[in-house]
Amino acid sequence: MSQPTPHHFTDRLIAAIRRKKNPVLVGLDPRAESLPKGLLAGEENEAVARAYVAFCRGIIDVVAPLVPAVKPQAAFFEQLGPTGCVALGEVMNYAAEKGLVVILDGKRNDIGTTAQAYAEGYLGGVGFQPAQKSPWGADALTVSPYLGDDSITPFLTIAKERGAGIFVLVKTSNPGGGRFQDLVADGQPLYRHVAQFVEGLSAKSRGSEGYGFAGAVCGATYPEQLAELRQAMPSTLFLIPGFGAQGGTAKDCAAAFDERGLGGIVNNSRGIIFAHSRVEYRDKFGDARWQAAVEAATRDMIAQLATETTAGRL
Amino acid sequence: MSQPTPHHFTDRLIAAIRRKKNPVLVGLDPRAESLPKGLLAGEENEAVARAYVAFCRGIIDVVAPLVPAVKPQAAFFEQLGPTGCVALGEVMNYAAEKGLVVILDGKRNDIGTTAQAYAEGYLGGVGFQPAQKSPWGADALTVSPYLGDDSITPFLTIAKERGAGIFVLVKTSNPGGGRFQDLVADGQPLYRHVAQFVEGLSAKSRGSEGYGFAGAVCGATYPEQLAELRQAMPSTLFLIPGFGAQGGTAKDCAAAFDERGLGGIVNNSRGIIFAHSRVEYRDKFGDARWQAAVEAATRDMIAQLATETTAGRL
Repeated sequence: MSQPTPHHFTDRLIAAIRRKKNPVLVGLDPRAESLPKGLLAGEENEAVARAYVAFCRGIIDVVAPLVPAVKPQAAFFEQLGPTGCVALGEVMNYAAEKGLVVILDGKRNDIGTTAQAYAEGYLGGVGFQPAQKSPWGADALTVSPYLGDDSITPFLTIAKERGAGIFVLVKTSNPGGGRFQDLVADGQPLYRHVAQFVEGLSAKSRGSEGYGFAGAVCGATYPEQLAELRQAMPSTLFLIPGFGAQGGTAKDCAAAFDERGLGGIVNNSRGIIFAHSRVEYRDKFGDARWQAAVEAATRDMIAQLATETTAGRL
Repeated sequence: MSQPTPHHFTDRLIAAIRRKKNPVLVGLDPRAESLPKGLLAGEENEAVARAYVAFCRGIIDVVAPLVPAVKPQAAFFEQLGPTGCVALGEVMNYAAEKGLVVILDGKRNDIGTTAQAYAEGYLGGVGFQPAQKSPWGADALTVSPYLGDDSITPFLTIAKERGAGIFVLVKTSNPGGGRFQDLVADGQPLYRHVAQFVEGLSAKSRGSEGYGFAGAVCGATYPEQLAELRQAMPSTLFLIPGFGAQGGTAKDCAAAFDERGLGGIVNNSRGIIFAHSRVEYRDKFGDARWQAAVEAATRDMIAQLATETTAGRL
């Protein structure tokens, strides 16, 4: 039985980055208390889940023509129980229908066949039949590395089959991230050990643009380490959280990018999706024109990255 | 507004262990290809999800009078998409109704308010109002530590409020677990650094039985490390995977237990739930009497732990 030939995940993502001429990743992190007025029609989980779908569809409508990819955060949907999971599935489907690359931020991790179950469930990719077997249909999933190599390789096996990808946590953006990640063993911090392992996987899975489909999560809040990791991981595409609300700037992300403006996607969640509450946009747009605020914040971030990084060459 | 006083998670778990006179944790890891014949009425995710609910309810009916707790594995439900999440919710509710302590194996991890969202969603505990706010209602959740201290404390804040608990991955049972966990920094392996952090949290949250509600996952497949960790973590209750199919024996778990027979819960998933396929039980019970096979395997494991560990004193 011949398999359909799936496309390479990173090549697909990079094609989307080139089409949109920017590496912005919009994080879909809905929170009931931060939604624009009028979207929430009740406090029950079911009502909140409906509001999340409406809100995320509204964001997707605005950003789909502008950016290559979105990153739904599983936690905020799962918080609502099974009804939230149904909403997450709808949001992911809608984003895919609108042509966006969908990176699910689930930070999943488990061993052997359990990791395989996560991978089979979440990684849809392209060209995979039957689609029913990946009910979520994510293009990529974030993965946590503590469980070791045999917890990561099952994800990659499925990712390869399906033209999907993973992003392994390497150096995260939170203040406490260093607690374990910065511990020095055999002359280098833990995150460098993880980086070395991930780079090995990416080097073996490079697409035509030079990047493999085992990506790495490296925070914008640690720009020196980001620069160091770019040197250490030449085949690895970075998912860069920490821009905006967490304090990372466009300049902080610069080292992630190669001379073509490739090598990273920069996530912004709250700064874009709740732009209607930010001082920069509140007075101009407010709750009533929250989608216009999303658009303005997205365009501003694109412009900042174009000015401060090689992404301007895209 | 006065809060209802929730019970302490570890005290509740230990009370259940004392009532049942054993520390067996039955892992609910349904897999379509391993179900007893006749349960699966189709290949669609919806049909598989229905079969998982029927299967898990059948297991719960058998084990509820015998063991203190069950551990549903989120991956196998999520693999089926949103319909699997609905099934997971039903299974968790049913187990709680039957008086079992429910430990969800989700290995969740994220930072700050995102970790809080997972905690608020999953940790139900007892005495918490409104119950609607924890749609999943787990008594405890497994948590991965790579993201650091500020990724774990949000779980503990909610756990404390609700009388719930967490189990942090420390030394996992898989062969590749050592890849990062065994790296030596500042004179001790990474897992000992995580252990030290978790013990600190547990020491501050001890219940009347002496164990805190920040538990640790320590595999039966590394008995020497389990003994070492018991010394290093006197306030921490262990969730011990790796018994049975992964090669761990009752003897391998012995070091986890104190002189009262407390200190650990030993998980067995495949060895119990798919006992109908095991050579020891297949001929006697087979597919038709799969629930009798589950009962026999559970009783045998209880007997093994009673013989080989201090759990016999319960």
